[in-house]
Amino acid sequence: MKNSIDFYFDFSSPYGYFSSEKIDELAKRCDCEVVWRPYLMGVVMKITERKPLVQIPMVNEYSSRDLHRLARFHGIEFNVPSTFPVATIAACRAYYWLNQNDTAKSKQLAQSLFRAYFIEDKLISKSDVVIDIAAEIDIDSAKLESALNDPDVKNLVREATDDAIAQKVFGSPFFVVDGEPFWGHDRLDQLEAWVKTGGW
Amino acid sequence: MKNSIDFYFDFSSPYGYFSSEKIDELAKRCDCEVVWRPYLMGVVMKITERKPLVQIPMVNEYSSRDLHRLARFHGIEFNVPSTFPVATIAACRAYYWLNQNDTAKSKQLAQSLFRAYFIEDKLISKSDVVIDIAAEIDIDSAKLESALNDPDVKNLVREATDDAIAQKVFGSPFFVVDGEPFWGHDRLDQLEAWVKTGGW
Repeated sequence: MKNSIDFYFDFSSPYGYFSSEKIDELAKRCDCEVVWRPYLMGVVMKITERKPLVQIPMVNEYSSRDLHRLARFHGIEFNVPSTFPVATIAACRAYYWLNQNDTAKSKQLAQSLFRAYFIEDKLISKSDVVIDIAAEIDIDSAKLESALNDPDVKNLVREATDDAIAQKVFGSPFFVVDGEPFWGHDRLDQLEAWVKTGGW
Repeated sequence: MKNSIDFYFDFSSPYGYFSSEKIDELAKRCDCEVVWRPYLMGVVMKITERKPLVQIPMVNEYSSRDLHRLARFHGIEFNVPSTFPVATIAACRAYYWLNQNDTAKSKQLAQSLFRAYFIEDKLISKSDVVIDIAAEIDIDSAKLESALNDPDVKNLVREATDDAIAQKVFGSPFFVVDGEPFWGHDRLDQLEAWVKTGGW
Protein backbone atom coordinates (compact mmCIF):
# COMPACT_ATOMS: atom_id res chain seq x y z
CA MET A 1 0.00 0.00 0.00
CA LYS A 2 1.18 3.50 -0.80
CA ASN A 3 2.23 5.86 1.93
CA SER A 4 -0.30 8.59 2.56
CA ILE A 5 0.51 12.14 3.68
CA ASP A 6 -2.14 14.18 5.45
CA PHE A 7 -1.67 17.78 4.29
CA TYR A 8 -3.35 20.21 6.71
CA PHE A 9 -3.57 23.89 5.82
CA ASP A 10 -5.59 27.06 6.10
CA PHE A 11 -6.58 28.77 2.84
CA SER A 12 -5.33 32.06 4.26
CA SER A 13 -1.81 30.77 4.94
CA PRO A 14 0.93 31.82 2.50
CA TYR A 15 3.26 29.03 3.59
CA GLY A 16 0.34 26.63 3.12
CA TYR A 17 -0.02 28.01 -0.40
CA PHE A 18 3.68 27.48 -1.13
CA SER A 19 3.43 23.88 0.01
CA SER A 20 0.30 23.33 -2.08
CA GLU A 21 2.41 24.26 -5.11
CA LYS A 22 5.18 21.82 -4.15
CA ILE A 23 3.44 18.83 -2.59
CA ASP A 24 2.51 17.12 -5.88
CA GLU A 25 6.12 16.95 -7.02
CA LEU A 26 7.14 15.62 -3.61
CA ALA A 27 4.40 12.97 -3.75
CA LYS A 28 5.56 11.90 -7.19
CA ARG A 29 9.16 11.57 -6.04
CA CYS A 30 8.04 9.54 -3.02
CA ASP A 31 5.36 7.58 -4.87
CA CYS A 32 2.85 8.42 -2.16
CA GLU A 33 -0.64 9.85 -1.87
CA VAL A 34 -1.61 13.18 -0.38
CA VAL A 35 -4.90 13.86 1.39
CA TRP A 36 -5.64 17.59 1.38
CA ARG A 37 -7.20 18.65 4.69
CA PRO A 38 -8.03 22.37 4.88
CA TYR A 39 -9.18 23.48 8.31
CA LEU A 40 -9.89 26.67 10.23
CA MET A 41 -6.59 27.55 11.82
CA GLY A 42 -8.11 30.56 13.60
CA VAL A 43 -9.74 28.13 16.05
CA VAL A 44 -6.36 26.62 16.88
CA MET A 45 -4.65 30.01 17.11
CA LYS A 46 -7.09 30.84 19.91
CA ILE A 47 -6.29 27.61 21.77
CA THR A 48 -2.57 28.19 21.43
CA GLU A 49 -2.92 31.93 22.13
CA ARG A 50 -0.84 32.84 19.10
CA LYS A 51 -1.08 35.79 16.75
CA PRO A 52 -0.49 35.86 13.00
CA LEU A 53 3.13 36.82 12.21
CA VAL A 54 1.94 40.04 10.56
CA GLN A 55 0.59 41.20 13.92
CA ILE A 56 3.87 40.77 15.82
CA PRO A 57 6.21 43.79 16.04
CA MET A 58 9.58 43.29 14.25
CA VAL A 59 8.47 39.88 12.95
CA ASN A 60 5.89 41.42 10.61
CA GLU A 61 8.43 43.30 8.49
CA TYR A 62 10.71 40.30 8.20
CA SER A 63 7.80 38.02 7.46
CA SER A 64 6.79 39.90 4.33
CA ARG A 65 10.38 39.88 3.07
CA ASP A 66 10.71 36.16 3.79
CA LEU A 67 7.53 35.35 1.88
CA HIS A 68 8.58 37.19 -1.27
CA ARG A 69 12.10 35.81 -1.11
CA LEU A 70 10.86 32.25 -0.57
CA ALA A 71 8.40 32.55 -3.46
CA ARG A 72 11.16 33.72 -5.79
CA PHE A 73 13.47 30.98 -4.47
CA HIS A 74 10.89 28.35 -5.41
CA GLY A 75 9.69 30.07 -8.58
CA ILE A 76 6.16 30.41 -7.22
CA GLU A 77 4.01 33.35 -8.25
CA PHE A 78 2.99 35.30 -5.13
CA ASN A 79 1.59 38.60 -3.97
CA VAL A 80 0.67 39.65 -0.46
CA PRO A 81 -3.15 39.97 -0.53
CA SER A 82 -4.49 43.41 0.33
CA THR A 83 -6.64 41.85 3.08
CA PHE A 84 -4.68 39.39 5.18
CA PRO A 85 -5.39 37.08 6.89
CA VAL A 86 -9.03 36.39 6.00
CA ALA A 87 -11.78 34.06 7.19
CA THR A 88 -11.75 30.85 5.17
CA ILE A 89 -15.04 29.26 6.18
CA ALA A 90 -16.64 29.64 2.74
CA ALA A 91 -13.56 28.23 1.01
CA CYS A 92 -13.51 25.27 3.41
CA ARG A 93 -17.21 24.58 2.98
CA ALA A 94 -16.89 24.59 -0.80
CA TYR A 95 -13.93 22.23 -0.53
CA TYR A 96 -15.57 19.66 1.76
CA TRP A 97 -18.88 19.76 -0.08
CA LEU A 98 -17.09 18.86 -3.31
CA ASN A 99 -14.73 16.46 -1.60
CA GLN A 100 -17.56 14.13 -0.61
CA ASN A 101 -17.95 12.92 -4.19
CA ASP A 102 -14.89 14.05 -6.12
CA THR A 103 -11.52 14.38 -4.38
CA ALA A 104 -9.69 15.32 -7.60
CA LYS A 105 -12.09 18.18 -8.21
CA SER A 106 -11.96 19.42 -4.63
CA LYS A 107 -8.18 19.49 -4.82
CA GLN A 108 -8.40 21.44 -8.07
CA LEU A 109 -10.70 23.91 -6.32
CA ALA A 110 -8.28 24.22 -3.42
CA GLN A 111 -5.48 25.11 -5.82
CA SER A 112 -7.72 27.62 -7.60
CA LEU A 113 -8.68 29.25 -4.32
CA PHE A 114 -5.07 29.52 -3.16
CA ARG A 115 -3.99 31.04 -6.47
CA ALA A 116 -6.94 33.40 -6.61
CA TYR A 117 -6.04 34.73 -3.16
CA PHE A 118 -2.25 34.77 -3.37
CA ILE A 119 -1.79 35.72 -7.01
CA GLU A 120 -4.91 37.61 -8.07
CA ASP A 121 -5.78 39.17 -4.70
CA LYS A 122 -9.34 37.85 -4.79
CA LEU A 123 -11.10 38.08 -1.43
CA ILE A 124 -11.83 34.39 -0.83
CA SER A 125 -13.56 35.14 2.46
CA LYS A 126 -16.62 36.13 0.42
CA SER A 127 -19.04 33.44 -0.69
CA ASP A 128 -19.71 35.02 -4.07
CA VAL A 129 -15.98 35.18 -4.81
CA VAL A 130 -15.62 31.49 -3.93
CA ILE A 131 -18.58 30.70 -6.18
CA ASP A 132 -17.03 32.65 -9.08
CA ILE A 133 -13.68 30.92 -8.70
CA ALA A 134 -15.44 27.55 -8.61
CA ALA A 135 -17.46 28.42 -11.71
CA GLU A 136 -14.24 28.86 -13.67
CA ILE A 137 -13.54 25.16 -13.18
CA ASP A 138 -17.10 24.18 -14.05
CA ILE A 139 -18.58 23.84 -10.60
CA ASP A 140 -22.29 24.58 -10.61
CA SER A 141 -22.86 27.96 -8.96
CA ALA A 142 -26.43 27.36 -7.78
CA LYS A 143 -25.56 24.03 -6.18
CA LEU A 144 -22.48 25.49 -4.51
CA GLU A 145 -24.39 28.51 -3.24
CA SER A 146 -26.90 26.25 -1.59
CA ALA A 147 -24.13 23.98 -0.24
CA LEU A 148 -22.45 26.95 1.47
CA ASN A 149 -25.54 27.33 3.66
CA ASP A 150 -26.24 23.63 4.15
CA PRO A 151 -25.96 22.62 7.85
CA ASP A 152 -24.47 19.27 6.83
CA VAL A 153 -21.71 21.02 4.88
CA LYS A 154 -21.08 23.43 7.76
CA ASN A 155 -20.71 20.37 9.92
CA LEU A 156 -18.11 18.85 7.61
CA VAL A 157 -15.88 21.88 8.19
CA ARG A 158 -16.44 21.74 11.93
CA GLU A 159 -15.49 18.06 11.92
CA ALA A 160 -12.41 18.70 9.78
CA THR A 161 -11.21 21.34 12.23
CA ASP A 162 -12.01 19.14 15.24
CA ASP A 163 -10.13 16.31 13.56
CA ALA A 164 -7.10 18.53 12.94
CA ILE A 165 -7.04 19.52 16.61
CA ALA A 166 -7.46 15.90 17.67
CA GLN A 167 -4.43 15.05 15.52
CA LYS A 168 -2.55 17.84 17.37
CA VAL A 169 -2.29 19.95 14.25
CA PHE A 170 -1.67 23.60 15.11
CA GLY A 171 -0.13 25.24 12.04
CA SER A 172 -0.27 25.64 8.29
CA PRO A 173 1.09 23.81 6.47
CA PHE A 174 1.20 20.81 8.76
CA PHE A 175 1.84 17.26 7.56
CA VAL A 176 1.27 13.91 9.21
CA VAL A 177 2.61 10.70 7.74
CA ASP A 178 2.20 7.43 9.58
CA GLY A 179 1.66 9.32 12.85
CA GLU A 180 4.75 11.52 12.40
CA PRO A 181 3.99 15.29 12.44
CA PHE A 182 5.87 17.92 10.41
CA TRP A 183 5.11 21.61 10.90
CA GLY A 184 5.94 24.21 8.29
CA HIS A 185 6.84 24.55 4.66
CA ASP A 186 10.48 24.36 5.70
CA ARG A 187 10.00 20.80 6.91
CA LEU A 188 9.21 19.49 3.40
CA ASP A 189 12.78 18.20 3.03
CA GLN A 190 12.51 16.15 6.20
CA LEU A 191 9.00 14.98 5.30
CA GLU A 192 10.33 13.70 1.99
CA ALA A 193 13.33 12.03 3.60
CA TRP A 194 11.04 10.46 6.20
CA VAL A 195 8.71 8.95 3.59
CA LYS A 196 11.62 7.67 1.52
CA THR A 197 13.56 6.15 4.40
CA GLY A 198 10.83 5.18 6.83
CA GLY A 199 12.19 7.57 9.45
CA TRP A 200 15.30 7.91 11.59
CA MET B 1 36.85 41.19 0.31
CA LYS B 2 35.17 38.12 1.75
CA ASN B 3 31.46 38.10 2.46
CA SER B 4 30.70 38.30 6.16
CA ILE B 5 27.72 36.67 7.88
CA ASP B 6 26.49 38.06 11.18
CA PHE B 7 25.34 35.08 13.24
CA TYR B 8 23.02 36.19 16.06
CA PHE B 9 21.92 33.69 18.69
CA ASP B 10 20.97 33.17 22.30
CA PHE B 11 22.97 30.55 24.23
CA SER B 12 19.71 29.05 25.45
CA SER B 13 18.34 28.43 21.95
CA PRO B 14 18.46 24.84 20.65
CA TYR B 15 18.06 25.92 17.03
CA GLY B 16 20.87 28.41 17.63
CA TYR B 17 22.97 25.49 18.90
CA PHE B 18 22.19 23.44 15.79
CA SER B 19 23.27 26.30 13.56
CA SER B 20 26.44 26.80 15.59
CA GLU B 21 27.35 23.22 14.69
CA LYS B 22 26.68 23.78 10.97
CA ILE B 23 27.78 27.35 10.25
CA ASP B 24 31.51 26.58 9.90
CA GLU B 25 30.88 24.07 7.10
CA LEU B 26 28.58 26.55 5.38
CA ALA B 27 31.19 29.31 5.67
CA LYS B 28 33.82 27.03 4.17
CA ARG B 29 31.57 26.14 1.23
CA CYS B 30 30.82 29.83 0.67
CA ASP B 31 34.34 31.05 1.40
CA CYS B 32 32.97 33.66 3.79
CA GLU B 33 33.54 34.83 7.33
CA VAL B 34 31.14 34.49 10.24
CA VAL B 35 30.87 36.94 13.11
CA TRP B 36 29.31 35.27 16.15
CA ARG B 37 26.98 37.67 17.94
CA PRO B 38 25.31 36.17 21.02
CA TYR B 39 22.67 38.41 22.55
CA LEU B 40 19.92 38.30 25.18
CA MET B 41 16.88 37.19 23.24
CA GLY B 42 14.67 37.48 26.34
CA VAL B 43 14.76 41.26 25.89
CA VAL B 44 13.44 40.92 22.34
CA MET B 45 10.84 38.34 23.31
CA LYS B 46 9.35 40.97 25.61
CA ILE B 47 9.26 43.58 22.85
CA THR B 48 7.63 41.13 20.44
CA GLU B 49 5.38 39.72 23.19
CA ARG B 50 6.29 36.16 22.30
CA LYS B 51 6.66 33.09 24.48
CA PRO B 52 9.19 30.26 24.17
CA LEU B 53 7.73 27.38 22.11
CA VAL B 54 7.84 25.12 25.17
CA GLN B 55 5.31 27.37 26.88
CA ILE B 56 2.70 27.20 24.10
CA PRO B 57 0.01 24.51 24.35
CA MET B 58 0.16 21.91 21.52
CA VAL B 59 3.33 23.48 20.13
CA ASN B 60 5.42 22.38 23.12
CA GLU B 61 4.95 18.66 22.52
CA TYR B 62 5.71 18.96 18.82
CA SER B 63 8.67 21.20 19.49
CA SER B 64 10.48 18.61 21.58
CA ARG B 65 9.89 15.97 18.90
CA ASP B 66 11.10 18.31 16.17
CA LEU B 67 14.31 19.12 18.04
CA HIS B 68 15.29 15.49 18.57
CA ARG B 69 14.36 14.58 15.00
CA LEU B 70 16.29 17.51 13.56
CA ALA B 71 19.35 16.68 15.66
CA ARG B 72 19.33 13.09 14.42
CA PHE B 73 18.73 14.31 10.84
CA HIS B 74 21.88 16.44 11.05
CA GLY B 75 23.90 14.01 13.16
CA ILE B 76 24.22 16.51 16.01
CA GLU B 77 24.42 15.30 19.59
CA PHE B 78 21.54 16.81 21.58
CA ASN B 79 19.59 16.47 24.81
CA VAL B 80 16.83 18.69 26.12
CA PRO B 81 18.36 20.40 29.18
CA SER B 82 16.55 19.77 32.44
CA THR B 83 16.21 23.55 32.95
CA PHE B 84 15.03 25.30 29.81
CA PRO B 85 15.22 28.07 28.79
CA VAL B 86 17.80 29.70 31.05
CA ALA B 87 19.27 33.16 31.54
CA THR B 88 22.39 33.57 29.44
CA ILE B 89 23.86 36.78 30.82
CA ALA B 90 26.92 35.12 32.34
CA ALA B 91 27.60 33.19 29.13
CA CYS B 92 27.29 36.38 27.08
CA ARG B 93 29.55 38.35 29.40
CA ALA B 94 32.23 35.67 29.24
CA TYR B 95 31.95 35.65 25.44
CA TYR B 96 32.25 39.41 24.94
CA TRP B 97 34.99 39.82 27.51
CA LEU B 98 37.09 37.26 25.65
CA ASN B 99 36.02 38.53 22.24
CA GLN B 100 37.68 41.89 22.81
CA ASN B 101 41.13 40.38 22.37
CA ASP B 102 40.69 36.93 20.87
CA THR B 103 37.78 36.19 18.53
CA ALA B 104 38.91 32.61 17.86
CA LYS B 105 38.97 31.85 21.57
CA SER B 106 35.60 33.49 22.21
CA LYS B 107 34.08 31.39 19.42
CA GLN B 108 35.61 28.29 20.96
CA LEU B 109 34.06 29.25 24.28
CA ALA B 110 30.68 29.77 22.61
CA GLN B 111 30.83 26.26 21.16
CA SER B 112 31.86 24.85 24.54
CA LEU B 113 28.98 26.63 26.28
CA PHE B 114 26.43 25.40 23.74
CA ARG B 115 27.67 21.81 24.00
CA ALA B 116 27.85 21.94 27.78
CA TYR B 117 24.21 23.02 27.92
CA PHE B 118 22.72 20.93 25.11
CA ILE B 119 24.78 17.75 25.48
CA GLU B 120 25.95 17.60 29.09
CA ASP B 121 23.01 19.42 30.71
CA LYS B 122 25.26 21.90 32.50
CA LEU B 123 23.40 24.90 33.90
CA ILE B 124 25.12 27.69 31.97
CA SER B 125 23.02 30.34 33.68
CA LYS B 126 25.36 30.02 36.68
CA SER B 127 28.60 31.97 36.72
CA ASP B 128 30.63 29.20 38.35
CA VAL B 129 29.49 26.73 35.69
CA VAL B 130 30.54 29.17 32.94
CA ILE B 131 33.90 29.61 34.69
CA ASP B 132 34.42 25.83 34.90
CA ILE B 133 33.57 25.34 31.22
CA ALA B 134 35.96 28.14 30.29
CA ALA B 135 38.70 26.63 32.45
CA GLU B 136 38.57 23.46 30.38
CA ILE B 137 39.78 25.47 27.38
CA ASP B 138 42.45 27.24 29.41
CA ILE B 139 40.68 30.46 30.23
CA ASP B 140 41.89 31.92 33.49
CA SER B 141 39.20 31.44 36.13
CA ALA B 142 40.15 34.36 38.38
CA LYS B 143 40.25 36.80 35.47
CA LEU B 144 36.95 35.56 34.10
CA GLU B 145 35.29 35.72 37.52
CA SER B 146 36.30 39.33 37.85
CA ALA B 147 35.22 40.07 34.25
CA LEU B 148 31.73 38.71 34.93
CA ASN B 149 31.22 41.51 37.44
CA ASP B 150 33.01 44.21 35.50
CA PRO B 151 30.66 47.10 34.57
CA ASP B 152 32.48 47.49 31.23
CA VAL B 153 31.86 43.86 30.36
CA LYS B 154 28.22 44.12 31.44
CA ASN B 155 27.99 47.04 29.09
CA LEU B 156 29.36 45.03 26.17
CA VAL B 157 26.45 42.61 26.51
CA ARG B 158 23.97 45.45 26.76
CA GLU B 159 25.42 46.98 23.61
CA ALA B 160 25.37 43.66 21.76
CA THR B 161 21.69 43.22 22.58
CA ASP B 162 20.88 46.81 21.65
CA ASP B 163 22.78 46.32 18.40
CA ALA B 164 20.82 43.15 17.61
CA ILE B 165 17.54 44.99 18.16
CA ALA B 166 18.76 47.92 16.03
CA GLN B 167 19.50 45.40 13.25
CA LYS B 168 15.90 44.15 13.66
CA VAL B 169 17.05 40.79 14.93
CA PHE B 170 14.30 39.03 16.87
CA GLY B 171 15.10 35.31 16.89
CA SER B 172 17.77 32.68 17.32
CA PRO B 173 19.47 31.79 15.13
CA PHE B 174 19.24 34.91 13.01
CA PHE B 175 21.65 35.74 10.20
CA VAL B 176 22.36 38.96 8.37
CA VAL B 177 24.51 39.07 5.26
CA ASP B 178 24.97 42.30 3.36
CA GLY B 179 21.79 43.70 4.96
CA GLU B 180 19.69 40.63 4.11
CA PRO B 181 18.09 38.97 7.18
CA PHE B 182 17.45 35.22 7.57
CA TRP B 183 15.56 33.89 10.58
CA GLY B 184 15.83 30.32 11.73
CA HIS B 185 18.00 27.26 11.35
CA ASP B 186 15.75 26.20 8.49
CA ARG B 187 16.86 29.22 6.44
CA LEU B 188 20.47 28.01 6.26
CA ASP B 189 19.89 26.67 2.75
CA GLN B 190 18.67 30.03 1.51
CA LEU B 191 21.43 31.86 3.38
CA GLU B 192 23.99 29.69 1.61
CA ALA B 193 22.33 30.17 -1.78
CA TRP B 194 22.18 33.92 -1.17
CA VAL B 195 25.88 34.19 -0.36
CA LYS B 196 26.84 32.04 -3.34
CA THR B 197 24.63 33.81 -5.88
CA GLY B 198 24.47 37.34 -4.51
CA GLY B 199 20.71 37.08 -4.03
CA TRP B 200 17.59 36.72 -6.16
